[in-house]
Amino acid sequence: MKYIYLDNAATTKVDSRVVKAMLPYFTDNYGNASSLHQLGQKNIQVIEKSRSILAKHFNCQPEEVIFTSGASESNNYAIKGAAEAYRQLGKNLVVCPTDHSSVINSAQHLANKGFKITWLKVDKHGLVDKNHLRQAVNKNTILVSIGHSNNEIGTIQPITELVKIVKARNPKTLFHTDAVQSLQFFDLDVKKVPVDLLTITGHKFYAPKGIGALYVKKGVHLEKLIDGGQQEGGKRSGTENIPYIAGMAKAIELVEKNQKDYNKKVTALRDRFINKVKKQIDGAMLTGHPTKRLPNIASFIFTNIEGESILLTLDQAGVAVSTGSACASHSLKPSHVLTQIGYPPELAHCSIRFSFGKDNTIQEIDKVVDILKKAVSKLRKISPLK
Amino acid sequence: MKYIYLDNAATTKVDSRVVKAMLPYFTDNYGNASSLHQLGQKNIQVIEKSRSILAKHFNCQPEEVIFTSGASESNNYAIKGAAEAYRQLGKNLVVCPTDHSSVINSAQHLANKGFKITWLKVDKHGLVDKNHLRQAVNKNTILVSIGHSNNEIGTIQPITELVKIVKARNPKTLFHTDAVQSLQFFDLDVKKVPVDLLTITGHKFYAPKGIGALYVKKGVHLEKLIDGGQQEGGKRSGTENIPYIAGMAKAIELVEKNQKDYNKKVTALRDRFINKVKKQIDGAMLTGHPTKRLPNIASFIFTNIEGESILLTLDQAGVAVSTGSACASHSLKPSHVLTQIGYPPELAHCSIRFSFGKDNTIQEIDKVVDILKKAVSKLRKISPLK
Repeated sequence: MKYIYLDNAATTKVDSRVVKAMLPYFTDNYGNASSLHQLGQKNIQVIEKSRSILAKHFNCQPEEVIFTSGASESNNYAIKGAAEAYRQLGKNLVVCPTDHSSVINSAQHLANKGFKITWLKVDKHGLVDKNHLRQAVNKNTILVSIGHSNNEIGTIQPITELVKIVKARNPKTLFHTDAVQSLQFFDLDVKKVPVDLLTITGHKFYAPKGIGALYVKKGVHLEKLIDGGQQEGGKRSGTENIPYIAGMAKAIELVEKNQKDYNKKVTALRDRFINKVKKQIDGAMLTGHPTKRLPNIASFIFTNIEGESILLTLDQAGVAVSTGSACASHSLKPSHVLTQIGYPPELAHCSIRFSFGKDNTIQEIDKVVDILKKAVSKLRKISPLK
Repeated sequence: MKYIYLDNAATTKVDSRVVKAMLPYFTDNYGNASSLHQLGQKNIQVIEKSRSILAKHFNCQPEEVIFTSGASESNNYAIKGAAEAYRQLGKNLVVCPTDHSSVINSAQHLANKGFKITWLKVDKHGLVDKNHLRQAVNKNTILVSIGHSNNEIGTIQPITELVKIVKARNPKTLFHTDAVQSLQFFDLDVKKVPVDLLTITGHKFYAPKGIGALYVKKGVHLEKLIDGGQQEGGKRSGTENIPYIAGMAKAIELVEKNQKDYNKKVTALRDRFINKVKKQIDGAMLTGHPTKRLPNIASFIFTNIEGESILLTLDQAGVAVSTGSACASHSLKPSHVLTQIGYPPELAHCSIRFSFGKDNTIQEIDKVVDILKKAVSKLRKISPLK
């Protein structure tokens, strides 16, 4: 049985061209990039070339790109680093409550250290309430953190507009966005999306897990999260993970080359899936914004059935999906995203996320709809939630 | 020209068996370990099996092993995490000043936050002054951090004895050791080396750069460095780097299988090198302890020649060495290790580290001594330091 993978928002299969780009750095060019001999110096060049590829992608300077171990580190570094570096400006942070747990829990960590967190209001589709944002930002606001797009329901925030609102209220307030789910589909030119801090991670776009980056606008100072050697311009210590850095740069090049095609393909798969599910399955509620949404995510609530039951039934039938963010999957609590946008816990427990990737096919979509239809029908018969 | 790599303390070539152990997790078993479907659950098993391999190696429980992105993160997490979690116990930390920059700078970071750092006295060989340690630890001491062995001069600390001294003074004081350079050569059974926190990193023993671990004794609480999802028992958030975790576990298995052989081989190479250099090259001073030293490190000061000149001359001749810690190589300051153990800056600038690995040969050693002899002779003729 061939497994159908519809959990691309949790992680992606590494592209074989990315693997190929990484392999030389394990056993051939294995020098420590901090070493002054040829084997080290060659690898400094690999890192700096990779950094330039990311900088070109973001339309920024290479020294504004910091490699990290992934999105959780980038989000922690951006939020805690800014808060601690600018604590004399005030102790307020404004955070989107439907963001990833590494954003939420970094903010919570700071709340325990005496910072005041303002949690933004969001509407039923997950869009940030602009009036509330305007009110929330004041002279004490160090940082606003709002994700570029939501990893559970796929809603895309109008970040450029939100940055304008924030800067009009307080030009000193920094703006951070977690753009993890957006990189492969959207233009993240920081001249057009003028944030101060932006998080990405490789494994959401066919590079491996364990490598990410943080864009830090020139002039923005962060208290270091990982102190030590002078790597990453003195901003992030630790021997550089050269294979993964080269791999992530390759994956960015592939995104640039194929963004239009991926977008078109994945959007078509998503729309076909949404239309078929709506037509063929009763009590299927699409969550997130009807149009302002990621091309690759379709999350549904199937009334009266727990998301986990559907997940396990689909898994037995050879289909991989998730109930929400992978990072929250071991929690028994209902999705914080769905409860924040107003779903009662009994519905929030019924959510299931389908996320599509470049390697999925129309045949797979059609097959999954059939399997899902039968699963929902069977599970509704035995559901205790009715 | 075949390059001779004598910089194994900076980093090692990844073992081909380690690469083989990693490859399936890029393109075949690529699930996010937090996902509840088969592809995710399979990878949870891979992580837990790897964790058990490390736990067996340390003779501890699996839940006492936390995977990190490397030694810098582990050291930061151990030191800052303990200091913040136990700040009510007192605000004193006792730190070995010849340790790695990620230890020193984590302590410095805490000094800026109001903690009081006591820098231990060390003797001319780099051994910690036991009487000073005894005096330094008091009822306010949260943590003592002393590296298991030194990465520049190779001196090994008697950690078991030092732990006893600390615990006799204050049983609540935690003991952290950075054992990065020691793992491949020594028994790190935490029942025999009874530390509370122990740092390792894969790339010092033939696994890749970008993966490490921290042993955290049961009952020891650390403030989190990276907040977010519930990975690593809630102690370190971020999607797990499954290929590297599996790779590091494989490398540990190889260490266990080959530790005796590696030790014997590398010791023989080191001793041959030291003896030949002492006999054939005037003004060559071996740094570090004469006998209590790592099997793989021989650091020399060649009077009247800057270490960097030797490094570059050897590099041109196809030999990779370093002046000291790779992580400090871009600093113009003389080695903090050598200045701490009493060398004046003009000698500390003349240091050069040769570090041997499992793939080096006797022929390479003999060739390097010849090349080195000529280099020293040539450089002394033109040296402005005479």
